[in-house]
Amino acid sequence: KQICTVQDTLSPVLHKPSILVFAADHGLAQIGVSAYPPEVTAKMVLNFVGGGAAINVFTKQHGIKLQVVDAGVNYEYDSNLPIEHLKVAKGTANMLEKPAMTAQELSQCLKQGKALIAQKANEGCNIIGFGEMGIGNTSSAALLMHQVLEIPLEKCVGRGTGLNDEQLQNKLQVLAQVLAKHPTVLGVHEALQTFGGFEIAMMCGAMLEAVNQKMVVLVDGFIATAAFICAQAMNEACKEMALFCHQSDESGHKLMLETLGVEPILNLDLRLGEGTGCALAYPIVKSAVDFMNTMASFETAGVSKKE
Amino acid sequence: KQICTVQDTLSPVLHKPSILVFAADHGLAQIGVSAYPPEVTAKMVLNFVGGGAAINVFTKQHGIKLQVVDAGVNYEYDSNLPIEHLKVAKGTANMLEKPAMTAQELSQCLKQGKALIAQKANEGCNIIGFGEMGIGNTSSAALLMHQVLEIPLEKCVGRGTGLNDEQLQNKLQVLAQVLAKHPTVLGVHEALQTFGGFEIAMMCGAMLEAVNQKMVVLVDGFIATAAFICAQAMNEACKEMALFCHQSDESGHKLMLETLGVEPILNLDLRLGEGTGCALAYPIVKSAVDFMNTMASFETAGVSKKE
Repeated sequence: KQICTVQDTLSPVLHKPSILVFAADHGLAQIGVSAYPPEVTAKMVLNFVGGGAAINVFTKQHGIKLQVVDAGVNYEYDSNLPIEHLKVAKGTANMLEKPAMTAQELSQCLKQGKALIAQKANEGCNIIGFGEMGIGNTSSAALLMHQVLEIPLEKCVGRGTGLNDEQLQNKLQVLAQVLAKHPTVLGVHEALQTFGGFEIAMMCGAMLEAVNQKMVVLVDGFIATAAFICAQAMNEACKEMALFCHQSDESGHKLMLETLGVEPILNLDLRLGEGTGCALAYPIVKSAVDFMNTMASFETAGVSKKE
Repeated sequence: KQICTVQDTLSPVLHKPSILVFAADHGLAQIGVSAYPPEVTAKMVLNFVGGGAAINVFTKQHGIKLQVVDAGVNYEYDSNLPIEHLKVAKGTANMLEKPAMTAQELSQCLKQGKALIAQKANEGCNIIGFGEMGIGNTSSAALLMHQVLEIPLEKCVGRGTGLNDEQLQNKLQVLAQVLAKHPTVLGVHEALQTFGGFEIAMMCGAMLEAVNQKMVVLVDGFIATAAFICAQAMNEACKEMALFCHQSDESGHKLMLETLGVEPILNLDLRLGEGTGCALAYPIVKSAVDFMNTMASFETAGVSKKE
């Protein structure tokens, strides 16, 4: 029903399904808020390009086009690699010292995200999934959730890629310090500039343009939903275009979805990111569209009505 | 992990995925326990054969072979139609008067279900979904749930294809009368004979053979799970072979799954039957297998370990 509404038709069609994986590094990751070192971001991008990641397996299974976007990875990639080279900088600044990015960098992220989607729409794509990779980005997502949805920080912070209890407490303390450093943040743009990541901000711009282009927006897990709540704060029309694909095992995501008042398509206890939720949910979305277009009604099948 | 265990390998393979839809009529449906008249069973079978049902849409989407089994529909089908013609009788007896089937009919159901699966295994199929169609069969399923799992009847009885409050109370009263008529039922075979449907009993036999053949068993909704609890009572090994595809919107199904201690793959608020849950969950199962076989590990991808 939602896809029919987005496309304003009773015969919806899905064209050129695509998933964009936005990758970037985070200044805060240098001081250890993740179970993995920051270099993993750069290596996972190469893994996506090499076809070895989970998202490669699932997009191949369903014929979904996968594009990797370097929004700000701390690594110089060969320009011939099949990557969207949109690096804003080699990772954000350390939020304990200053805002994650400058106003100019935020503006660049939003603009480049929008341009990328305008190009996809131009190519005929009308359904697009949003995924990400960035060591340290559950910290940014938690801070944005706290700031934009006004939810207590401790309910927003989770184990990310697998912190133990002590590491989780440390992460919570570091993020409380970050908040104390930036007490006067006001509005979604300043929140995104102060606490965001380049991949989150670029995704936010991309989502806004996707909504503008009346594309079906597939939102992945915790970080992609953090980008979505920023986009939603900038344009209320976002929600009617978006399908929430998978409820992440990351604790804050359930609360995020509840606060938005939406139900995820899948709940498979994964915490993978990379857009994997979008790829796994895509066949269900496709089923709904096929169902709408090709199933016989009781009338056409000559089946009796209710008594 | 479960599929690896069933197949005893770290390189699991899914061969010739199939869904069997078992259809039969119910004596009790003649007195009105469903929102639809009994003739719908026969017509929906023709709809499956004609390709117009929801299950046709979803099996076509995923390249799953669909076979319709006439276990006991109250209709004479042309023998040339692509149906497995295994009709035991033209519907069960009215349980208010006598057991739904004779001991001989039950035995025939189990035997034919087993033979059907032996043939599928012979053809190389190693993953099989179980769906059903039969107006009145949520009544049978509720009685079996009550009898086999020892759950109070009122927690087992739901709205089926869409009863209103008054109709639901009537259904509950009728089923309580059925129970009062058969106070001494003992063990799963007698329960299945007294309260079963031909489609449920044949599905039970088929599931037992699928487990015997070490096939991956995809269980659909409320009625298929009722057949499963009977199979499980006959052979405890069933549970490790079975994947529960979709939690039905039928109220008793959630409790059935909780009692079994299993989690469904999907929860899409559907109450469709026909094996649709199996078809919708199949791509997720396939994703798990592809993931296991083709994703790079952090070691092979050269990604750093946890710190």
